Amino acid sequence: MGKRINLLVFSGDYDKLYAALLIANGARDMGMEVSMFFAFWGLFAVRDPERMNGEEKSAYEKMFGAVTPKGPEELGLSRMNMMGAGKSMMLEMIKDDNAPSLTKLLDGARKNNVKFYGCKLSTEVMGFKKDEMLPELEIVDVKAYIEDAVQADMQLLV
Amino acid sequence: MGKRINLLVFSGDYDKLYAALLIANGARDMGMEVSMFFAFWGLFAVRDPERMNGEEKSAYEKMFGAVTPKGPEELGLSRMNMMGAGKSMMLEMIKDDNAPSLTKLLDGARKNNVKFYGCKLSTEVMGFKKDEMLPELEIVDVKAYIEDAVQADMQLLV
Amino acid sequence: MGKRINLLVFSGDYDKLYAALLIANGARDMGMEVSMFFAFWGLFAVRDPERMNGEEKSAYEKMFGAVTPKGPEELGLSRMNMMGAGKSMMLEMIKDDNAPSLTKLLDGARKNNVKFYGCKLSTEVMGFKKDEMLPELEIVDVKAYIEDAVQADMQLLV
Repeated sequence: MGKRINLLVFSGDYDKLYAALLIANGARDMGMEVSMFFAFWGLFAVRDPERMNGEEKSAYEKMFGAVTPKGPEELGLSRMNMMGAGKSMMLEMIKDDNAPSLTKLLDGARKNNVKFYGCKLSTEVMGFKKDEMLPELEIVDVKAYIEDAVQADMQLLV
Repeated sequence: MGKRINLLVFSGDYDKLYAALLIANGARDMGMEVSMFFAFWGLFAVRDPERMNGEEKSAYEKMFGAVTPKGPEELGLSRMNMMGAGKSMMLEMIKDDNAPSLTKLLDGARKNNVKFYGCKLSTEVMGFKKDEMLPELEIVDVKAYIEDAVQADMQLLV
Repeated sequence: MGKRINLLVFSGDYDKLYAALLIANGARDMGMEVSMFFAFWGLFAVRDPERMNGEEKSAYEKMFGAVTPKGPEELGLSRMNMMGAGKSMMLEMIKDDNAPSLTKLLDGARKNNVKFYGCKLSTEVMGFKKDEMLPELEIVDVKAYIEDAVQADMQLLV
């Protein structure tokens, strides 16, 4: 009844995000409220692969934006990634078992009213602009995260 | 009194599992209830090193099962592993201080009634069969994990 | 009112510690109590860069102490570190946005009465002596950690 879950998504790994979204979607199905707060490398997952914006970025920020993953499917595994070979194998194994893709899990969370927050400081440091991210993403500061997390019944750092 | 701890063991690193089991055993000694839910790479730790089963596995699953760690002692360090050299050094340092081995900590948790759960989806994707895992391991779905975790007084993602 | 946060700092990564200290300082500003428990690789962050002590150490412990990071600024990134090149780029990006350095965040936490604990077993295994660490660091065992963490309103493993 009315339980709340808060997930701080710090890592930008395919497998860790997969786990986080399984929990988020499962909890929503069970009637719980779920907040996901994306920070640092986790922001890669909520970049819109279709929208890039190089304006008002420093040279470092442009380079950083260009060489890092754009959206969920470009993320690598936290281990056994082997420059993508291990990830390809894992994707085949996921497909063989009819398990959902990461994009499908993310779309599910978006439709399912999981709340998406992005860390203000991280977006500033990395140079990510609001219009390069998923439209659901609300940019908030660390205190807004703490306020939400400390009231939740369960918090995880992913 | 009657506090409950839930640990989601996602990583398959020797050092992280060591920390998780120190917490699990310490909490049991203090009279708390402890659940450990093994998912993804964490499942390596609860494979039975003595029992392998290649039946009903796809080619990928067979290969995956063969090249990944079988049980706690085959896990590597999360950093400074250096193809095993750093781990050997760490094991010497652990022995010099009469600190317990990972296997001893795991056996302690098994005897101490820590509850062991394995993630259904992960076992299916990785092709691990029930009879290849520690007999205590109960295979459950993500909702069973959430149900247990959200009722606990403390949750960690390891 | 009177909320409490407990952070278990296991990793020795610059970026993860940065996030942990942003949370710690933010929560203190909001009037919450914060405990940080440093274990395993996390202990690198609370070594005093000015003080080294080789006495009463085994050969492994001496070598280990010499080759591992001494204090916050020597920590690497959890990803894209690229032998320091990626970290230098990140530090430039942090400076460009007038975001605080890790040392400044750590000093802030020390002045701000965040409670600093160090894991007894980890210091023994790694051979770190009390007088090589920040003076605020109180060495306690795993049960003291559990006792503190389970009473908190929020726990994270960093």
